[in-house]
Amino acid sequence: MGMDEKMDDKGVSRRQMIVGTGALAASAAVAHFGGLIGSAQAVGCTSEKWPWPYVKLDPATTAQIAYEEWYRVFCGAAVINSVFGQLREKVGEPYQSFPADAFVFLEGGQVGWGTICGSPAGANLVANCIIGPRIAGDAAGHHIAEDIMQFYSEAAMPVFTPKNPKITTELIKTTSNSPLCHISVGKWMKAANKPIGSPERKDRCARVAASTAYHLVVLLNAWKDGKYEAKSTHAPVKDFGITAQMNCMECHGADIPTPPMAAKK
Amino acid sequence: MGMDEKMDDKGVSRRQMIVGTGALAASAAVAHFGGLIGSAQAVGCTSEKWPWPYVKLDPATTAQIAYEEWYRVFCGAAVINSVFGQLREKVGEPYQSFPADAFVFLEGGQVGWGTICGSPAGANLVANCIIGPRIAGDAAGHHIAEDIMQFYSEAAMPVFTPKNPKITTELIKTTSNSPLCHISVGKWMKAANKPIGSPERKDRCARVAASTAYHLVVLLNAWKDGKYEAKSTHAPVKDFGITAQMNCMECHGADIPTPPMAAKK
Repeated sequence: MGMDEKMDDKGVSRRQMIVGTGALAASAAVAHFGGLIGSAQAVGCTSEKWPWPYVKLDPATTAQIAYEEWYRVFCGAAVINSVFGQLREKVGEPYQSFPADAFVFLEGGQVGWGTICGSPAGANLVANCIIGPRIAGDAAGHHIAEDIMQFYSEAAMPVFTPKNPKITTELIKTTSNSPLCHISVGKWMKAANKPIGSPERKDRCARVAASTAYHLVVLLNAWKDGKYEAKSTHAPVKDFGITAQMNCMECHGADIPTPPMAAKK
Repeated sequence: MGMDEKMDDKGVSRRQMIVGTGALAASAAVAHFGGLIGSAQAVGCTSEKWPWPYVKLDPATTAQIAYEEWYRVFCGAAVINSVFGQLREKVGEPYQSFPADAFVFLEGGQVGWGTICGSPAGANLVANCIIGPRIAGDAAGHHIAEDIMQFYSEAAMPVFTPKNPKITTELIKTTSNSPLCHISVGKWMKAANKPIGSPERKDRCARVAASTAYHLVVLLNAWKDGKYEAKSTHAPVKDFGITAQMNCMECHGADIPTPPMAAKK
């Protein structure tokens, strides 16, 4: 592991590498993944100068937009548009140049494959586009993504109840213990006894997108005020020696394998 | 389900809804997820006019860039930069305005949580930014993402061997049967008996990014030539009634639950 600067002749050379004390501190905080840590800032590309200009947004307004956008672009793009759509109007660039609608593919855990739910995937994208990647010097986007994943996993979802909901009967709430679409949607479908194509399942997912967007804006507003503190306690690489969710027994049962570990020094 | 046009007063109204026969055909092909299908094209935002200009790239060159970029920005952003970096030079906008480095957070299955591997996540992003979301009328980006996920799951990884690799000994190859980082990395670590922080694991993941970028460019080049045909056979919502990967028994054992299904009509 190191702070090695790496330049080559394939397009990377035009990037200016800036490593400062902020980057060092941030890297120390997130170095447990075990990759090389660098710090990059693009030259001549406004979208890669961080942080992007951000004005505080109203969480409930944002959540309502996400709820309504779900029915047009589904979970991931709904969360992205709920924040970037407002910032396109209030700030302008670089939000106007971001192709938010392209992220429809985040639906159903990426084109229906049930991997990460599009709502946290979209929220992670928003936080890291605004604040920048940890290698650029501020790890707050990385930490907000961790917080979003843990919030999503631990909350009784959906948290947010929209105005003028399409489903007016009460929706059952479930806790996924995982950011995976398959598990989150599957546990809800089982508890609600509703199929994937039902209006209730769709409205549940629209409200999950809204709930995630609400929490995302709370965290971004705190960051804007200089008051954001990372809360996530799940550090799988450090604690388990492998990238992982926290619900090990749900797949492995009692027989949780031990990954190969580095020799003690 | 329907092609209902939905407009509201929260930023969606400035988008022009265009529904054509192409959109209808594409929607029919991918409608099995069960969401509402619309078709949107942004007005006044060049990044949301699809398809983006694309020139055919060399797969091996792209893979080599992805391999080298992994050591700077890790799997997801490496795949994105391997394609968009070349197109920034060969085409210009909208690639120059895309904040590719922000996607470092895709590392480790999103900030180390072991959900979708950043390599397919980055490839899915590239295909859908270039071709556009299925709701804009061309579902090829959606289908390329499905193909990438299935390729990633079924290939003995890593497929691609870079020039001047950091690890000069042969790396063992494993098949993940899943696009999840935790499973893909975990199976490789077990077979190789190498820890997460080892140089071999890092180089394996750099080569997986390269292998995914290679396949992505093969598919994009075919699409550019008008010869792309979707090959993915995994249709979980249609086949199983839930968003899912294909390795059901790996988590569920023989006791695979049946999700609530819609009543037969």
